[in-house]
Amino acid sequence: MEHTSPAGKEDLIVGRNAVMEALRAGREIDVLYLAEGDAGIGKLRAMARAAGVVVKTAARQKLDQMSGGLNHQGAAAVCACAVYADLDDLLEESSRKGTPPFLLIADEIEDPHNLGAILRTAEASGADGLILPKRRSASLNATVYKTSAGAASVVKVARVSNLVACIRELKQRQIWIFGAEMDGASWDTLDFTLPCALVIGSEGKGLSRLVREECDFLATLPMRGQINSLNASVAAGILMYEVLRQRRLPK
Amino acid sequence: MEHTSPAGKEDLIVGRNAVMEALRAGREIDVLYLAEGDAGIGKLRAMARAAGVVVKTAARQKLDQMSGGLNHQGAAAVCACAVYADLDDLLEESSRKGTPPFLLIADEIEDPHNLGAILRTAEASGADGLILPKRRSASLNATVYKTSAGAASVVKVARVSNLVACIRELKQRQIWIFGAEMDGASWDTLDFTLPCALVIGSEGKGLSRLVREECDFLATLPMRGQINSLNASVAAGILMYEVLRQRRLPK
Repeated sequence: MEHTSPAGKEDLIVGRNAVMEALRAGREIDVLYLAEGDAGIGKLRAMARAAGVVVKTAARQKLDQMSGGLNHQGAAAVCACAVYADLDDLLEESSRKGTPPFLLIADEIEDPHNLGAILRTAEASGADGLILPKRRSASLNATVYKTSAGAASVVKVARVSNLVACIRELKQRQIWIFGAEMDGASWDTLDFTLPCALVIGSEGKGLSRLVREECDFLATLPMRGQINSLNASVAAGILMYEVLRQRRLPK
Repeated sequence: MEHTSPAGKEDLIVGRNAVMEALRAGREIDVLYLAEGDAGIGKLRAMARAAGVVVKTAARQKLDQMSGGLNHQGAAAVCACAVYADLDDLLEESSRKGTPPFLLIADEIEDPHNLGAILRTAEASGADGLILPKRRSASLNATVYKTSAGAASVVKVARVSNLVACIRELKQRQIWIFGAEMDGASWDTLDFTLPCALVIGSEGKGLSRLVREECDFLATLPMRGQINSLNASVAAGILMYEVLRQRRLPK
């Protein structure tokens, strides 16, 4: 139980689907804890054994304690630290698929639920990967894995120390930077068939100033109401599906 | 403190923005509790007084207890029960705006975070209102208000005892029913300039069988990954912005 400290939560994947996806994706798991007497987790146990993962049976209260309030559904995996990719790995994804690069950049998204939901849609919409800064950002922790429904194990994620420098490098590699912002062009008038990276800012603050200044285009979702606020992961989802929509159309 | 029982949470709006929107929307508030010694809530206090709402100062611990884990930011309003609209109110919205009806139907969405996020996007995308069933659905509780960023006070919400009967009535009123489903037509090939109601199912189960059978069209978001699961509120957001997109284009 040396992994139950709050800091140790970073290395924990909880919830049946999240653990199953981590196993499928070949994540290195140190120990998988399964709730005792739970009939519904036989498949997970078999998968883990087949993958050579150490499985331990634990009392439900122990799992509650380890998971720190997350709904573990009887399964918690203690993992080797999150595996981060580098920029080249992300760009290789698009060469492998034979499609123009399609990247996401999370600009200081500190809410792990939003980051998890963005990863989930990124996986479904066929994005090549996500870039996040090392500072002032949620990292790939247990909440992100859980909210991403396992996508955090599948989508390549790169962490960079300097987001502005990273964006400059992407631009040198012929990738166009699209920032999600209030006062830009309507999102559906921009050409997302270009090699692109979508930058999503945090809900409270939007894009940081230096990042916004590096953007080639600002993409805006028009709003028709009085409150006019969108959840960051919903806004990101709408933009990602616009990329998918445009790339499906004959040019 | 007679409103602090778990059942009483239904009548509580917590969080500064949510309370502010409730005040702006003219929601009937019995008492507004504000944290003592909190400098940041002066504006809220003034707004509440101007609206003739009883304001009480409470210790932060009392607010914590009332809010049951939600982040109250020093403000919690005890409200008269949520005000629900009826179907005619929702349809009047579109006549008032001079646009074809654009409704949302939440089919057994029990997760209040998803319902709140759907209301938030509905408000921003200009939908006329939301219909939800009385049973097996989240109601307009404190979590929904908070997650909706106040949109739950602004968007008209109707509760119906029989969702299938309601859908049949909408069809008789020349509204086309679009269900979000896995094996339908690609979402961007459907004509959302028609008077429409989008039906969103729960994440686990999708649309219920009887509701699906009543749909005129099934709208599908193509998926490109391995896990291929979208959050219900993200999927709803993508569909709502497709309605907005199509209605902005010259026909």
